[in-house]
Amino acid sequence: MTNFTVGPVQSCESIHEIGAEDVPYFRTAEFSAVMLENERLMLKFANAPKGSRAVFVTGSGTASMEASIMNILTPNDCVLVVNGGSFGARFSKICDIHDVSHNDIRLPVGRQLRQADIDLVAEGHSHTAFIVNKHETSTGVHYDMQLISEYCKKHNLLLIVDNISSFLCDEFNMAELGADVMITGSQKALACPPGVSIIVLSPRALERVARNDPKCMYFDLKDALANQERGQTPFTPAVQILLQINARLKSIDAVGGVAAEVAKAKRMAAYFRGMIEGLPLEIVSESLSNAVTPLHPTNGMSAYDIFLKLKDEYSIWVCPNGGDMKDKIFRVGHMGCLNESDYDKLVFALKEVML
Amino acid sequence: MTNFTVGPVQSCESIHEIGAEDVPYFRTAEFSAVMLENERLMLKFANAPKGSRAVFVTGSGTASMEASIMNILTPNDCVLVVNGGSFGARFSKICDIHDVSHNDIRLPVGRQLRQADIDLVAEGHSHTAFIVNKHETSTGVHYDMQLISEYCKKHNLLLIVDNISSFLCDEFNMAELGADVMITGSQKALACPPGVSIIVLSPRALERVARNDPKCMYFDLKDALANQERGQTPFTPAVQILLQINARLKSIDAVGGVAAEVAKAKRMAAYFRGMIEGLPLEIVSESLSNAVTPLHPTNGMSAYDIFLKLKDEYSIWVCPNGGDMKDKIFRVGHMGCLNESDYDKLVFALKEVML
Repeated sequence: MTNFTVGPVQSCESIHEIGAEDVPYFRTAEFSAVMLENERLMLKFANAPKGSRAVFVTGSGTASMEASIMNILTPNDCVLVVNGGSFGARFSKICDIHDVSHNDIRLPVGRQLRQADIDLVAEGHSHTAFIVNKHETSTGVHYDMQLISEYCKKHNLLLIVDNISSFLCDEFNMAELGADVMITGSQKALACPPGVSIIVLSPRALERVARNDPKCMYFDLKDALANQERGQTPFTPAVQILLQINARLKSIDAVGGVAAEVAKAKRMAAYFRGMIEGLPLEIVSESLSNAVTPLHPTNGMSAYDIFLKLKDEYSIWVCPNGGDMKDKIFRVGHMGCLNESDYDKLVFALKEVML
Repeated sequence: MTNFTVGPVQSCESIHEIGAEDVPYFRTAEFSAVMLENERLMLKFANAPKGSRAVFVTGSGTASMEASIMNILTPNDCVLVVNGGSFGARFSKICDIHDVSHNDIRLPVGRQLRQADIDLVAEGHSHTAFIVNKHETSTGVHYDMQLISEYCKKHNLLLIVDNISSFLCDEFNMAELGADVMITGSQKALACPPGVSIIVLSPRALERVARNDPKCMYFDLKDALANQERGQTPFTPAVQILLQINARLKSIDAVGGVAAEVAKAKRMAAYFRGMIEGLPLEIVSESLSNAVTPLHPTNGMSAYDIFLKLKDEYSIWVCPNGGDMKDKIFRVGHMGCLNESDYDKLVFALKEVML
């Protein structure tokens, strides 16, 4: 199979090699050193401000989204949530569950966020924080972080950023944007198996964590941070995935850093987008990430049928959408171990299926 | 390294082979079939009563311990907790966090549970549930489940069993014991990498889940159960570990089932325990599981120093203890891909280090 989904994605050989080994015992100085290096490199790659910390959660991206809300916000907060797709809606629901008041900036599928959208919802309220999925993965919209950053700085809002599918695919500078939280996961552009998500916390976010008291042992970030000081976790983590993350982070660091990763995703995205001109496919997002191309078939075919045909007849996975977008949109990812010839194969198959 | 810890443990070749592959996309009929088979085999191996269900949580064993308490108990419950080591204490703390009143049956290190221990704590209270770590992994005490089962049946108590380190090592019959919840993890006798824990729920537990409303999206078992009906999970799971669990469960099913697994752990435990006679090591538990042998050095050596020496000089991991047992106890596990010659090597090293 060739995998163009938005995760899990294809891993390189060095990641497979770690997966083929026995998992080491982890309450050791050796594993602690790995985890401290993981934290150091995550802070570097997020361009986190001085004094930031990173923790590694064994769980999906949603686990880290929820842990962030539970540990950083309280019912005394009132937050703005960009709700332009399933992942924005998820943040909104997490706020409901944890009694955090919120006003949602609802956007139609594919629409970029504009200043007027914020103003319309924000007017008359006093907010304390701003929550955004930098790249709303469900619809492939890459939000204008410059706009959001300026708004948050102007109104002194805490800025919580789900960067799960955009990390290493698009530029992100936590310090420059004044972002307080960045979340990502192991199975996106980190190109490791799913099972680990990562939270990077600014000094301002850390202060909030320190004085908060979440009603959950597993998601207690104070405990995670205290353990991570010595390179450990409160509970048995997904050790093998953390070793794979370590190999991947070191390899990124060795060959050009984040800039080279972003350039590669950009190159793959441009190559694919150039090739599909002439196919009955419409790109449905006003603002694309390099991570994903969201596509709507304009010849009346069901997007989900295209997903099934590519899977069953061509050994190719593209990424289907759920809910009411199931028949309208499928997505092609540009993360993981993919090259031009993989896209040649995909476009050949798309032509056979669609023309 | 040869790994005698209580997890992660050594995996067999077929598990390594899956770890060496790319992770497949999982929102497919193919992965759903794997997950439905995983559930079916877990119910079979737990001897779960008719109408039971199983869910797979991406997270450590503690994640499933906490999810069970959050979804099954409420502040209207009053529960008995066997608190004889770190994992009993963990259940007790989880109850505190979620406002579940509890009375703890505290036991000295290494002590089996007796009827009088229960009676002393239970007297004068009206309890609704009983929580026990069948095998208190921190001290290697395997509790008398017959005693607990009879007590729960007599008093109509819901019975929640952490079977994390004892599953597939010692007998467990959920239906016969009248147990309502069984928890285990991927990295113990299932001998897969850590990152997934499993909850088996009886019809009585399922009823409680259905009418409960936990304040957590990630640990909402109603959502997990509804998704698992079609072999899916609410959020991206640790797909690769779930595929490894599938291979392992099928292989157990093909070659003798749980009985053969238990017999193998029993044989390894007996072989090792026979060989250490004459060494300055005392077994500190009144009631042993086949999973682990907890040992106290009687020659004045620090248990932790022995762990370090075996690691650094012999490429052997035994399992150190934490807290105030750090220097007193280390543990030797009998889970995973180990055979008699591995124990020969360990005992040879122990003799060199200790005599």
